[in-house]
Amino acid sequence: MPSSSRGIATEVAPTVASAAAASSTIAIVLLGTGVVGGALLKLLNTSAAARVRLVGAANSRRQQTDPARLASRGLREQLNGAGEARDNARLLAALDASGVPVKVIIDASASATLAARHAEWLARGYHVVTANKALAGGELSGWRALQAALATGARYGDSATVGAGLPVLSTLRRLLGCGDSLLTLEGVFSGSLSWLFNQYDGSRPFSSLLREARQLGFTEPDPRSDLSGEDVARKLLIIARHAGFSIGSDEVVVESLVPEALRGIDGAVFLARLEELDAPLAARHAEATARGNVLRFLARLNQRGHARIGLVEVAPTHPAARLYGTDNLFALTTTRYNAQPLVIQGPGAGPEITAQAMLADVLALG
Amino acid sequence: MPSSSRGIATEVAPTVASAAAASSTIAIVLLGTGVVGGALLKLLNTSAAARVRLVGAANSRRQQTDPARLASRGLREQLNGAGEARDNARLLAALDASGVPVKVIIDASASATLAARHAEWLARGYHVVTANKALAGGELSGWRALQAALATGARYGDSATVGAGLPVLSTLRRLLGCGDSLLTLEGVFSGSLSWLFNQYDGSRPFSSLLREARQLGFTEPDPRSDLSGEDVARKLLIIARHAGFSIGSDEVVVESLVPEALRGIDGAVFLARLEELDAPLAARHAEATARGNVLRFLARLNQRGHARIGLVEVAPTHPAARLYGTDNLFALTTTRYNAQPLVIQGPGAGPEITAQAMLADVLALG
Ligand SMILES: NC(=O)c1ccc[n+]([C@@H]2O[C@H](COP(=O)([O-])OP(=O)(O)OC[C@H]3O[C@@H](n4cnc5c(N)ncnc54)[C@H](OP(=O)(O)O)[C@@H]3O)[C@@H](O)[C@H]2O)c1
Ligand SMILES: NC(=O)c1ccc[n+]([C@@H]2O[C@H](COP(=O)([O-])OP(=O)(O)OC[C@H]3O[C@@H](n4cnc5c(N)ncnc54)[C@H](OP(=O)(O)O)[C@@H]3O)[C@@H](O)[C@H]2O)c1
Repeated sequence: MPSSSRGIATEVAPTVASAAAASSTIAIVLLGTGVVGGALLKLLNTSAAARVRLVGAANSRRQQTDPARLASRGLREQLNGAGEARDNARLLAALDASGVPVKVIIDASASATLAARHAEWLARGYHVVTANKALAGGELSGWRALQAALATGARYGDSATVGAGLPVLSTLRRLLGCGDSLLTLEGVFSGSLSWLFNQYDGSRPFSSLLREARQLGFTEPDPRSDLSGEDVARKLLIIARHAGFSIGSDEVVVESLVPEALRGIDGAVFLARLEELDAPLAARHAEATARGNVLRFLARLNQRGHARIGLVEVAPTHPAARLYGTDNLFALTTTRYNAQPLVIQGPGAGPEITAQAMLADVLALG
Repeated sequence: MPSSSRGIATEVAPTVASAAAASSTIAIVLLGTGVVGGALLKLLNTSAAARVRLVGAANSRRQQTDPARLASRGLREQLNGAGEARDNARLLAALDASGVPVKVIIDASASATLAARHAEWLARGYHVVTANKALAGGELSGWRALQAALATGARYGDSATVGAGLPVLSTLRRLLGCGDSLLTLEGVFSGSLSWLFNQYDGSRPFSSLLREARQLGFTEPDPRSDLSGEDVARKLLIIARHAGFSIGSDEVVVESLVPEALRGIDGAVFLARLEELDAPLAARHAEATARGNVLRFLARLNQRGHARIGLVEVAPTHPAARLYGTDNLFALTTTRYNAQPLVIQGPGAGPEITAQAMLADVLALG
């Protein structure tokens, strides 16, 4: 058949078509205009977000509720200099004044202070969409407060908190809703640690790879946030708690890649001493190689609810041995997916896909 | 930490809890009480389906609308002997009479005749949940009629049509809804063909594996439905059409594994002549092995909308080379998932997971 007989991408999915046609039905406030928040602002200017109206935006220092300024492409830069003083109450007032039926607060920060407000906002009837893991992946008391607040009917869009929006939590919720249950979970939950160990073959010191990863924007400014495993622990807690395991944040056994001596020190000093990571990792790599294995930073939850995170030697046939780039991997064994796990794999970091996951959560509320 | 300090599975997901508490808000009619329909009937008796009320059930010959008989565990067997004469109008009347707000017709058959009614039912305001691929994966005119009917607001639960409910279509729809677009698609879409080529290592003739697969219930009663690639073509069409590629069913290039001489003949005769498959496949297997490769039955859609299905030699490092059992694999490259594909992998056949996918679609309507 000649390819001209095919109309490619002519029949757009109905959701898109109706989104573009309808007027705004969802009002949002955006907290955090960093890497992810900035990508979301770009998406808000596309037809996919035609139903969404931005009524407020803030970084940690400044905010903006003026419609003309919110509509300007220079909003992010402007918030660095000018704008109103930070005041969450005023942002909520902008949502209330919007006259739009669905009101959403978007948290694209990593602030524990903001996360601590999520439950209160939900209880007051605002929906919350978040990339911030600090509440659901923090203290168990915070998770419980969140569940209590959700009983009032407001919804919590958390797709971006795990796998940068890979369909992990949504899939798990679907299965649980049908009476299935999570038995075990295994995977690589960190884009930066995936990249580091996918690259690390002994030919270059680990510290050199780490500097490159940081320059590429794959790690946090202080890479100890990644290397400590804390970020992975939060994701594991979020998934496990969804599945009904009441695990406290202190109950995850985490093997940090940061040597004791480098833990308490200043960030700049740490960056200057990265070479101290090299010798211990080179030794582990040599041992693994001698046995024909590779090193991967794995998160694992077993059937008894024991959660472990750390560097593990796996055979080259292990699914985690075949990841590329910043790929994440989530293998879920459930009562009904038991012969083989249900596996979701793909890029697990990146502003664009993370922002897209948040937009999808917002649109699902409309 | 002692494991006794963990309450396992004590905090059930909110959807489950509310499902069990609420009275029935969804009325369903079940068409097809075979392998999948039977598994769905079992799920309907669990607390996860507490919101769902069965008001009618049918196989190809008989039906039942009597509440007492519908509630009996022997419903499937009963429909083989007794029951009312088949009459779709009477089943729809049972939905109308239910007084329940959400009315759903579930198609767990492979009947083209039933599939041809889906659009009409949707246009009349009934939701349809289907494992039957014959409409969306059939003629392009049928797909278009379906899209037109969906414009009226009724919904089409099609999760079970692809990957036995693996979250492929839902994920694609989420991405498209945010303005992302599908660039390429590759994978193994058939549980039976996956099993056959995961096992086929030259040590046993292909026909012997095929007989085993049929006995295990992995193939259709007439395995030509699997071997012809027609079932895979339907799944590819469903995904591609969702993504906006207007591909006719005659535009998929399908390499059938059934030799010309075995195509038109009677089913029983075909089963007696399975050994004729062996020599050509053994030759291809030997060639692949000589090059260090393996054979996989792949479906592929490229960026220009060209769809191909057939047996392909792949390197042992190819993701499809590492599947187990009846695993399916779907690798989606999109505008925003482009460095590495978004991959969904796992069991792609089985009555329980297929029925679970249908129940999830039903519950999402409530
Ligand atoms: N980057 C990724 O690939 C990725 C993927 C998945 C999830 N995430 C998560 O997404 C979140 C954001 O990540 P990012 O990479 O965008 O971080 P980032 O570039 O550091 O941006 C964080 C933003 O949050 C703002 N902020 C901090 N406290 C605030 C407050 N109290 N009120 C309002 N805004 C506040 C910051 O303001 P200032 O500019 O004033 O400091 C900054 O604009 C994090 O939770 C991260 O874990 C990121
Ligand atoms: N099995 C799987 O793992 C799987 C996975 C994904 C999708 N699916 C799809 O699910 C569907 C059902 O598969 P299955 O394995 O359950 O097939 P099956 O065991 O052959 O059952 C088919 C059922 O449909 C009934 N039927 C046929 N025509 C009908 C009509 N006009 N009205 C009402 N009922 C009718 C049959 O009735 P009789 O008993 O009277 O013939 C039978 O009860 C198929 O479309 C299949 O492709 C199956």
